Amino acid sequence: MSELQFKGYAIHDTSKWNDFKLIDFKPKEFADYDVDVKIHYCGICGSDIHTITGGWGQPIFPVIPGHEIVGTVEKVGPNVTEFKVGDRVGVGASVASCMDCKNCHEGIEQYCLKPGGLITTYNGTYPNGDRSFGGYSSAVRAHERFVFKVPDEIESEAAGPLFCAGLTVFSPLKRYGAGPGKKVGIIGMGGLGHLGVQFAAALGADKVVLFSHSDRKKEDALKLGATDFVATKDGPDVFKPWTASLDLIISTVNVSEGLPVANIMSTLTVGGHLITVGAPEDMLPAFSAFSLITTGASLGGSMIGSKKDVIDMLKVAAEKNVRPVIQVMPMSKAGEAVQKVKSGDVRYRYVLKSEF
Amino acid sequence: MSELQFKGYAIHDTSKWNDFKLIDFKPKEFADYDVDVKIHYCGICGSDIHTITGGWGQPIFPVIPGHEIVGTVEKVGPNVTEFKVGDRVGVGASVASCMDCKNCHEGIEQYCLKPGGLITTYNGTYPNGDRSFGGYSSAVRAHERFVFKVPDEIESEAAGPLFCAGLTVFSPLKRYGAGPGKKVGIIGMGGLGHLGVQFAAALGADKVVLFSHSDRKKEDALKLGATDFVATKDGPDVFKPWTASLDLIISTVNVSEGLPVANIMSTLTVGGHLITVGAPEDMLPAFSAFSLITTGASLGGSMIGSKKDVIDMLKVAAEKNVRPVIQVMPMSKAGEAVQKVKSGDVRYRYVLKSEF
Repeated sequence: MSELQFKGYAIHDTSKWNDFKLIDFKPKEFADYDVDVKIHYCGICGSDIHTITGGWGQPIFPVIPGHEIVGTVEKVGPNVTEFKVGDRVGVGASVASCMDCKNCHEGIEQYCLKPGGLITTYNGTYPNGDRSFGGYSSAVRAHERFVFKVPDEIESEAAGPLFCAGLTVFSPLKRYGAGPGKKVGIIGMGGLGHLGVQFAAALGADKVVLFSHSDRKKEDALKLGATDFVATKDGPDVFKPWTASLDLIISTVNVSEGLPVANIMSTLTVGGHLITVGAPEDMLPAFSAFSLITTGASLGGSMIGSKKDVIDMLKVAAEKNVRPVIQVMPMSKAGEAVQKVKSGDVRYRYVLKSEF
Repeated sequence: MSELQFKGYAIHDTSKWNDFKLIDFKPKEFADYDVDVKIHYCGICGSDIHTITGGWGQPIFPVIPGHEIVGTVEKVGPNVTEFKVGDRVGVGASVASCMDCKNCHEGIEQYCLKPGGLITTYNGTYPNGDRSFGGYSSAVRAHERFVFKVPDEIESEAAGPLFCAGLTVFSPLKRYGAGPGKKVGIIGMGGLGHLGVQFAAALGADKVVLFSHSDRKKEDALKLGATDFVATKDGPDVFKPWTASLDLIISTVNVSEGLPVANIMSTLTVGGHLITVGAPEDMLPAFSAFSLITTGASLGGSMIGSKKDVIDMLKVAAEKNVRPVIQVMPMSKAGEAVQKVKSGDVRYRYVLKSEF
């Protein structure tokens, strides 16, 4: 077993959010349930941009972003039971949780209740002070519960985005019953949305309606499984034909203007759900209780997904050929790729290829 | 069968919202499914105040408020099957719906989808232009689907508030599974809240936590079945002991300051629901998508209840002795009673006794 090197592309200042410097870093102290993964690919998620620009608050620098990781197991702790050296695996947005709260026991560890218990894959701090560093790097260390086997059917370069973008849309689609007999909406046609459309279709929803700002991505959406496409820039009237017709809507947008709550609620059936997985940096648009009362519908949120969700998600992705549409760049060009993502110039996910 | 007279106490101007004038009025044209009810009692609901003060928009005057009605059937149309003359019945917040949309067919007629299809008990307009007039009056006319038999166990003077306040809190408690193993919160200890506490306890919830502005109503809440009481005026820290612990919260408050969404969401379990049945006149307080995403919980609304809900609600009320705490006033003193309700001087429901 060769000793893994830990080095990666780091940001040191929010004002220089695309100026990556190659650094060596010290991973968390190795523990008995930990798995070390040599990274082959890492997707670029919108969260990376929110973090390195300070949009979600000031991070602790240096930050090595990246939580859509695919690689090979290089080392396992003595208590690891699921993995062995050489396994092809993925790591998503978290690398550890307390394992001892009600939610961890119930298998929804992404909602770990212990303050500071859930450790994000990057910009996280372990109880002993060790920092976490993400996948724009040579290697990552994670508790085995946060490591996932990649099915043989899924090629490495396409697998990464499934562990964050894919899981994040799949989890609420499953929880809120997307499937035959149900009509599903997806808001936003980006990294998450273009996977949401595919998963909703793969799960057998009767209708998959894609709401996007303009018509630009209409053809792509229909190709990926949308049955209908609504361009929201044409004003609130575009929602009217959908009044009280959708059972579940997943919002993937990360700007609050993209989530006109009152209009969207009007398209839901009684007991229907609008679930946001996108996290705009500002407050949601104001709305009145009447939007909730007269529709009998709910507005909720969903965070990533559980290990059980990952397993279910990978099975559907493998069987129904759900894949992110990706553009591969060498990891040394992370700055250029991140710049493109921030300006919306991406169709639909950048994936960095490791050169370490 | 004596011919019913239709007369009641009407408001003619939002600026004179407690200046009731006794008027004769023309009820809707009698139809084959209609039931005429001679009114004995009518509760005073917060909706009455929102309507006559113009808080929910300009009403069409004259308005005779009142939709917590108890009385005796005096006349039935030829197609009425459920009722006969002499039956003791109640009428709630609606008197007709389209009967032909998806929701009416599914038995959730309170969410009638036909524009203008749901006719409110007062300040409503039928398709032919006839107006609806409420229960501060001698008699009311309603489609039989919106008329309910009062169980023998429930005394007339206490029955009225069950048809709006009681139903409105019972319906979401039932829909979202309040019962053994569940922890329920109720926000607001008014006409709706004091019935919400009783119904949550009657349905067997493990905990019933009453959130109220101050401690003033603590003793009453505990007496009515609350297991815990939280005074929210003491600031956001009061929510901390309840973090991620409640499965369902019903908000009955009708001022947006009473609904600090972010704080309340933090008390919900993953998949938990905050359901507002109170309808503040202004927008809900702003909150961030993070309040939804990190909790995995939802914010929804619920409107009154269906006929099926009424039947279930009356059964529970009769069996478990759920009753509004009422203060009875003669109907001729409607102005005084409405004034007291508006200023919050009510424990916990005024009921007007007909003198017609």
